[in-house]
Amino acid sequence: MTPSEPAGPNATPPTSPTSETPPSPARPVRTATLAGIAREAGVSAPTVSKVLNGRADVAPATRARVEGLLRAHGYRRRRSEATRSPLIDLIFHELESSWALEVIRGVENVAREEGLSVVLSESAGRLTPGRTWADQVAARRPHGVILVLSGLDESQRALLTSRSIPFVVMDPAGDPGDDVPSIGATNWHGGLAATRHLIELGHRRIAALSGPARMMCSRARVDGYRAALETAGLPYDPGLIRAGNFHHDAGYRLGLDVLRRPDRPTAVFAGNDLQALGLYEAARELGLRIPEDLSVVGFDDLPVARWVGPPLTTVRQPLREMAEAAARLVLDLARGDGATAATRVELATSLVVRSSTGAPPA
Amino acid sequence: MTPSEPAGPNATPPTSPTSETPPSPARPVRTATLAGIAREAGVSAPTVSKVLNGRADVAPATRARVEGLLRAHGYRRRRSEATRSPLIDLIFHELESSWALEVIRGVENVAREEGLSVVLSESAGRLTPGRTWADQVAARRPHGVILVLSGLDESQRALLTSRSIPFVVMDPAGDPGDDVPSIGATNWHGGLAATRHLIELGHRRIAALSGPARMMCSRARVDGYRAALETAGLPYDPGLIRAGNFHHDAGYRLGLDVLRRPDRPTAVFAGNDLQALGLYEAARELGLRIPEDLSVVGFDDLPVARWVGPPLTTVRQPLREMAEAAARLVLDLARGDGATAATRVELATSLVVRSSTGAPPA
Repeated sequence: MTPSEPAGPNATPPTSPTSETPPSPARPVRTATLAGIAREAGVSAPTVSKVLNGRADVAPATRARVEGLLRAHGYRRRRSEATRSPLIDLIFHELESSWALEVIRGVENVAREEGLSVVLSESAGRLTPGRTWADQVAARRPHGVILVLSGLDESQRALLTSRSIPFVVMDPAGDPGDDVPSIGATNWHGGLAATRHLIELGHRRIAALSGPARMMCSRARVDGYRAALETAGLPYDPGLIRAGNFHHDAGYRLGLDVLRRPDRPTAVFAGNDLQALGLYEAARELGLRIPEDLSVVGFDDLPVARWVGPPLTTVRQPLREMAEAAARLVLDLARGDGATAATRVELATSLVVRSSTGAPPA
Repeated sequence: MTPSEPAGPNATPPTSPTSETPPSPARPVRTATLAGIAREAGVSAPTVSKVLNGRADVAPATRARVEGLLRAHGYRRRRSEATRSPLIDLIFHELESSWALEVIRGVENVAREEGLSVVLSESAGRLTPGRTWADQVAARRPHGVILVLSGLDESQRALLTSRSIPFVVMDPAGDPGDDVPSIGATNWHGGLAATRHLIELGHRRIAALSGPARMMCSRARVDGYRAALETAGLPYDPGLIRAGNFHHDAGYRLGLDVLRRPDRPTAVFAGNDLQALGLYEAARELGLRIPEDLSVVGFDDLPVARWVGPPLTTVRQPLREMAEAAARLVLDLARGDGATAATRVELATSLVVRSSTGAPPA
């Protein structure tokens, strides 16, 4: 995924280092000194420091040359050299629904304990933040970066690594790679539990709405749904699966679509709570009662799941706890606790049975 | 309101300047030079600079003495002296519901345009941020501060003013004073429009759930409700008004309370959308159908208002636009555009009629 180029005063020039080839992650750290890099770049050591410190008073071409060498040598500041500002960076691919709010509160909780402040950004729906963002982060040198449902491209990773700015991905959209610490939930098992609940109630025709296929958490939930069908010896009908976007509108649109089928399903695993709410609207429009005519299971357990009528059966994802874990992990990394560096932590999901699920219509 | 004292590494010592007397806002700006203050404090000018720059390497007692003099003289940096970091501070009294999310997105929109990043804080439900927060802000010197439903005490205002850090209050909880720029919505008129809508439908017994009495926006909405009754020549019954907290639980609790009255109201102005959702739950529990048995009007028009069953009639508050206006205003102030300094801007609210309101039961 390549980042699109946002406009704005901080937009990096075409000669930006991010346009050069990244180092292999395997390359040993600190093969060169700051002085050595200065020599090789034909500049003074203070100039290299300026680049490392994100100072503006360096010619773009010089800056690009130095950045290139820093990356080529896998240069990494000694922790003692790295003066961090009391900040944690938190970036979302989009600020949508109270889902994001739960995550923000989790990070705020840990930041407050540690006397740090949270810088919040949104990559406007892109799954990779823009270059401007990465340059801003490199310049302000926070204790660490938490990416929610988004990832960094190689050059962004190299940029942060050269500043010893650790990063953690929460619920990675793509496949971040084993060397990137990440925090998630047991999405696959959640999809399994949701679908088994419906099967135990007697449902045989169960539809599933997924999120975007590019999101691993979305794939995992649908795979769990499929596993539940297969282990129960039920047929898996691809016609009962629709790819959504995790928003209300997709639940409504795909809901109408799947509920208008002559062989209408008696239950739907909606993929997340917002799509479940869209499905509620579609059912109302078609005069279908929940759960008498249609059972619905969501995923996330947002506050609103308890408030809608009927209250929504859903798979609880401990969003705040996940965010707290991500914040603690990135601060451990900042403190140089390398033991946790290559972690993939998955917090447990749990089925919350409310009133939107029941036996299928006779 | 005095700020409670949060623990944490940045907690200020008892000798903190915030324990001293503030200057009168009327006092003319810059009655003393930095050198003059240094002389009076018996320290070097560089020491005064350190204090102004939020540097840690100043003895608490010295720092307190200098801060006191800076405030006593109403010292204010020349804009040229003030080197700002590319940040905007946004602080909420609490991060609750997608209400906060809409505000965050508005501020993010403006920040992105300006190449700034947003530092997000929560004052853990207190209507005045803690001292730690004010010290952190003074140290990082953002372009400006936006306070949502919270205010600053005199010493915090003086601290930010001495750093030329402008601030704007969005929807002030208390009465911020005419010299504090603030952004709000036409809460009074919204309460009036909501209640008139119910009166026009034929309702005569209309209850109202307010938010916290300490919040001006809450008082204004209920006053609008009362004005609608009075101008329609309807009796105003204090027994039909309940003070809530703008959260779902209050809508549920107060809803049960008011709906169990022998002389049950046929309609409720719920004060905000979350309380309206709580009221929905209370109505379901009592077997009352909306709108056949009970009409409900909310306030805010959060996304969820469209999604609940039945979709909620509510008063739209342009939260994102309000947040954008607050961000633009504080950046104008940072640029020294004093013309807007003493502004109180109220953006218009509008009634959105959906399916939760109808004629009263025969």
